[in-house]
Amino acid sequence: MIIREKEPANLEMTFSSLESRITPAEQFYVRSHFAVPEIDLTTWRLAVEGVVARRREFTFDELRALPQQTIEATIECAGNSRVFLVPKAKGVQWELGAVGNAEWTGVLLRDVLAAAELGEDARDIVLEGADRGAIAEPPRPAGEIHFARSVPREKALDDVLLAYSMNGEPLTPAHGFPLRAVVPGWYGMASIKWLQRIVALDREFNGYYQTVDYGCWQRDEAGAVLTPLSEMQVKSQIARPAGGERIRGGSTCKISGAAWTCAAEITRVEITANDGKSWHAAKLLGEAVPASWRLWELDWDAPQTLGKCTIRSRATDSLGRSQPMEHDANRGGYMINFCLPIDIEVV
Amino acid sequence: MIIREKEPANLEMTFSSLESRITPAEQFYVRSHFAVPEIDLTTWRLAVEGVVARRREFTFDELRALPQQTIEATIECAGNSRVFLVPKAKGVQWELGAVGNAEWTGVLLRDVLAAAELGEDARDIVLEGADRGAIAEPPRPAGEIHFARSVPREKALDDVLLAYSMNGEPLTPAHGFPLRAVVPGWYGMASIKWLQRIVALDREFNGYYQTVDYGCWQRDEAGAVLTPLSEMQVKSQIARPAGGERIRGGSTCKISGAAWTCAAEITRVEITANDGKSWHAAKLLGEAVPASWRLWELDWDAPQTLGKCTIRSRATDSLGRSQPMEHDANRGGYMINFCLPIDIEVV
Repeated sequence: MIIREKEPANLEMTFSSLESRITPAEQFYVRSHFAVPEIDLTTWRLAVEGVVARRREFTFDELRALPQQTIEATIECAGNSRVFLVPKAKGVQWELGAVGNAEWTGVLLRDVLAAAELGEDARDIVLEGADRGAIAEPPRPAGEIHFARSVPREKALDDVLLAYSMNGEPLTPAHGFPLRAVVPGWYGMASIKWLQRIVALDREFNGYYQTVDYGCWQRDEAGAVLTPLSEMQVKSQIARPAGGERIRGGSTCKISGAAWTCAAEITRVEITANDGKSWHAAKLLGEAVPASWRLWELDWDAPQTLGKCTIRSRATDSLGRSQPMEHDANRGGYMINFCLPIDIEVV
Repeated sequence: MIIREKEPANLEMTFSSLESRITPAEQFYVRSHFAVPEIDLTTWRLAVEGVVARRREFTFDELRALPQQTIEATIECAGNSRVFLVPKAKGVQWELGAVGNAEWTGVLLRDVLAAAELGEDARDIVLEGADRGAIAEPPRPAGEIHFARSVPREKALDDVLLAYSMNGEPLTPAHGFPLRAVVPGWYGMASIKWLQRIVALDREFNGYYQTVDYGCWQRDEAGAVLTPLSEMQVKSQIARPAGGERIRGGSTCKISGAAWTCAAEITRVEITANDGKSWHAAKLLGEAVPASWRLWELDWDAPQTLGKCTIRSRATDSLGRSQPMEHDANRGGYMINFCLPIDIEVV
């Protein structure tokens, strides 16, 4: 793992080591905003409150007794690839490794909400982690806050999972023990770790982590509006060759990587070595798995011309969405899905 | 006027010169976010659009032909008295003079919305000024934005005025020529100057100037939520003696100032010279005028003890609201209505 921040731990996968569709827990990126909370399973509870007919507190065993569900889901940090932004954007300087794909086992959020008899007026479901701390820079709330995020009612009642296992093992402390949300198709900030409280609201939740942080500007008829980040944008990344790698001129070189999107399938991955003038279609590997990335590879004829060569990949999904060539400045340091330039050296 | 920022102009009244209930335009504080826009009245239009049955564009003469209304209203900048905050808060370092009271003449926003046949789904009414520019610090939208702010439907259909005159004279460029909003009882950021566009939305407007800027944190069941600033908090200010003034020990000294609130009347103003251990009731002058400040004065016996003496005023309104002794940190650099310490010298 590459350390981007020591305390709290912010670690990313060395993406060039991508080998299989499932990312082992010890290689899965860690994004922390505060120190890992110490949790005692015997006293830990999941509270469900707000616009519900019956406030509930679940013990871990009570949750385990609910219907169990296993899904595969790719989770990407909303700031993944930030190091590619010029000029530099504020935030953790992730390269390619703040993304991973795992198998998650747990209970559906909708079953937990049903047990508490979710009210009809509930519009927004707030997920709150046990992790907490103070924010340093304004605009900031006074005192400590919990990391928390909301999902709209429709998403909450669809496929959001409250997971207690990752790749068949109990969650580790770094990945949210004993319980974390997994919000399929959404950037990682929504998949709250160390989940301890669910609050149903009859209004939109304007918490810190969906306004000042993890928000972006969208232009509509009324001007620029601050909008919570949500769905992952279609994206592919080259795992190998890694940036800086030396390739023999004129040789056949395997380019490989992964591609993902939200609520659709990856239908095409292409490679350019001339800034988009021409593209070469890669081969999609295995079968499409919902909410999961797709591995791909291409046997590519390296150029005869020696020196620096920049390769980029571009994915397209079944809704026709594709990666842009440039970063949209309204997104600030988030949703970085433009065709990333990987500089290699032809020798 | 005291210059707090030269360009764009941010000027405050020398509050110790407070003489009458009406603040002359040339003494009325100026809060600018961008350069004053150059407006040609022959081409200027007020557009009314969004969730309306009939999009409208009004010329200045067409607006003048609508029913005319004159109101008095006190407008305070949400950051007024920021210089009293320890530690220092970001923003223009206003002292006491970013507040004024004027007579405003114009048309009611509700008449303009009725002319455009406001839709039943309209929840939030965005008021946009012609002033525009780029924001320097993240989180910020890319490119230029207009200064804009919304008022909820209920307020828009109540008493919001679109004013073309101030104290019986046409608006000056600094005060929003040719048209500005006056949102009675609300902090000044809502009273959009150089008004050029009104957009009715079927949702809440999360614009820059009601989230990142001019927002504050309120705690509710779900945690800290970013909330647009709106209503002015009950407040009084001492105009004289001014800070640093020398008072003869044991003499009778007149303390005078103004007090205001939102949607209520000022019922009491008191002075303390011992940090709140005892209070002396001031006399409210004149009659209560809706949405307007109330002048007050007190003949006060200065202490015999020589040296520094700190006096503070505290207002209470007809809804029983009163000024706190300390600033609430969740408000950041806004809504500074705690009992301000004015240091004078007894000689």
